[in-house]
Amino acid sequence: MAAHGEMTTNKKVVLRRYVTGYPTAEDMEVVVTSSVPLRAPRGSTGAVVVKNLYLSCDPWMRGRMTKHDDGDAVPAEDFVLGEAMVNYTVGEVVDSTHPEFTAGELVWGMSAWDEYTLITHTEGLFKINHPDLPLSYYTGVLGMTGLTAYAGLFEVGKPKRGESVFVSAAAGAVGQVVGQLAKIAGCYVVGSVGSDEKVNLLKNKMGFDDAFNYKKEKDLDAALRRCLPGGIDIYFDSVGGATLDAALLRMRRGGRVVVCGMISQYNLSEHQGVRNLSCLIPKRIRMEGFAVMDYYRLYARFEDEMAGFIKKGNVCVVEDVVRGIEKAPEALVGLFSGRNVGKQLVAIA
Amino acid sequence: MAAHGEMTTNKKVVLRRYVTGYPTAEDMEVVVTSSVPLRAPRGSTGAVVVKNLYLSCDPWMRGRMTKHDDGDAVPAEDFVLGEAMVNYTVGEVVDSTHPEFTAGELVWGMSAWDEYTLITHTEGLFKINHPDLPLSYYTGVLGMTGLTAYAGLFEVGKPKRGESVFVSAAAGAVGQVVGQLAKIAGCYVVGSVGSDEKVNLLKNKMGFDDAFNYKKEKDLDAALRRCLPGGIDIYFDSVGGATLDAALLRMRRGGRVVVCGMISQYNLSEHQGVRNLSCLIPKRIRMEGFAVMDYYRLYARFEDEMAGFIKKGNVCVVEDVVRGIEKAPEALVGLFSGRNVGKQLVAIA
Repeated sequence: MAAHGEMTTNKKVVLRRYVTGYPTAEDMEVVVTSSVPLRAPRGSTGAVVVKNLYLSCDPWMRGRMTKHDDGDAVPAEDFVLGEAMVNYTVGEVVDSTHPEFTAGELVWGMSAWDEYTLITHTEGLFKINHPDLPLSYYTGVLGMTGLTAYAGLFEVGKPKRGESVFVSAAAGAVGQVVGQLAKIAGCYVVGSVGSDEKVNLLKNKMGFDDAFNYKKEKDLDAALRRCLPGGIDIYFDSVGGATLDAALLRMRRGGRVVVCGMISQYNLSEHQGVRNLSCLIPKRIRMEGFAVMDYYRLYARFEDEMAGFIKKGNVCVVEDVVRGIEKAPEALVGLFSGRNVGKQLVAIA
Repeated sequence: MAAHGEMTTNKKVVLRRYVTGYPTAEDMEVVVTSSVPLRAPRGSTGAVVVKNLYLSCDPWMRGRMTKHDDGDAVPAEDFVLGEAMVNYTVGEVVDSTHPEFTAGELVWGMSAWDEYTLITHTEGLFKINHPDLPLSYYTGVLGMTGLTAYAGLFEVGKPKRGESVFVSAAAGAVGQVVGQLAKIAGCYVVGSVGSDEKVNLLKNKMGFDDAFNYKKEKDLDAALRRCLPGGIDIYFDSVGGATLDAALLRMRRGGRVVVCGMISQYNLSEHQGVRNLSCLIPKRIRMEGFAVMDYYRLYARFEDEMAGFIKKGNVCVVEDVVRGIEKAPEALVGLFSGRNVGKQLVAIA
């Protein structure tokens, strides 16, 4: 526990201006606060000071970097200019007035993007129950993106053994887990990615049955026909746009489109039109959006199952780690050009 | 029962050529077959000769009027040129070798579009259990389009009391029933239609809470904000295109889009793009296509419930009836310009 009155400097990543189009690292800046307390305020009903060790970079943050009029149409509130951006982090409890957390414990959850955070909404803070695995995994496969993959695939997609699953952004934090879980569930799994390096990763390291580099395919429909000649039962969509349109044509009767993200669209001033929705009728397709925050009730079961898969070697993890909070803006921006290979995160301590 | 060997002339509506774009009456023709038997062949395992009294005109027939390469992407096989087109009819059994049907009984089901039909696939033939109601209702509210409305609303949309339901093509055969069933289920119901006459019909005859003429609205989003300021829980979509795009923006969290048809798109060489699908994620929208043929197991229950609603005055029916099989091509074509007011059908006897 921090000594009474102990203070520290604190670096935080703030949004400098609201973004239209592709974000740049200059839209953010890392600022230093002269001194912040390392002690949770006494008399508060449960607050925790966390020293962040890893920051998670996730595409959904892009939505919060634009000014919106209609809060219903976006996943979360717009970031406040000049204040620390917010996302999932992994850290260590420095001080706590909350009965469930004690100094020295490892935790992950929603936090400011800074070095030291006072967390008063502890319902979004989770203990780390498998500290024998790499801590950074709690930014990804054992954290929000892993649960996204698990809930999206099993609760929304509902795969059956022998079905065919198509995953876009398949080397990303969510996609790589979706594909490996679908293999565990007995499915035939094909991924689309944006480089040959990622194709190799999927096929040789992650057990995908097939994969293609969409940047090299002239015709997405032809690529899907080649890799999935029998059609698609579940399309786990993290990209939207042209890939979604092509997948709709190749869905099988009774297919499900799990709508997780649309990263191809986040930086466009007007979204691309999807033309093949009439397929939904004869093919009886269910297309369903979901948000991981609705599934945290599954977290304890998920954490144990996923830790088991990792320890047995059924799920392998590829991370793209940069070091230093100063690198966070650039790392986040890189997601939108697909520069990262695997889960993008920032080690800051 | 028809006398042994009795023959009759038979008029039938045939497709002359496959269609691209809007169909015209000249794409079809009514031809006379010199003589057909009025007696079901003996020795067959259950065949029925039906004298058709009413032909149903339904938008889904449009898909079968175009030549397709990919049978999975369309609701049913392409019509065969020069042969009778096929759709739902209401008729009287003239002769039967099937133990469940006897001459003189009234039936409805899938039939050739002609005066006399030999039906060998009797699993698509239903007895008429409420002959005290107008027979023509079995082309619509008590037939396929009524079951479409019932299954789509209750089995796919799953309305809850107090929810808001938006219905497009709301004066049509399906839409008018969806709206009235949603009122019975305790929902707030708004319809979009293509004429002021139809607006009046919905508001003054069918108990819709509100309705608008989309042809007079400059901005569909503004129309939906005006009529449904609290948003939409269920959008029952029979039109697709711009109306679907506008509705997506106004869906409430947890909303459902029941994808029944996309009549605005059927005659376009390339479908319009729908740009607002990213709403599915933050709003957790389920968008689901369905086909009425999957729900005939509900027919007996549906027929009794719906007949009860009609007899109690909870559901009223508006039909657009033309007389004479020669008028069938024109009546069918009129669906695609919205010329019909209510369920379009052809009385042929």
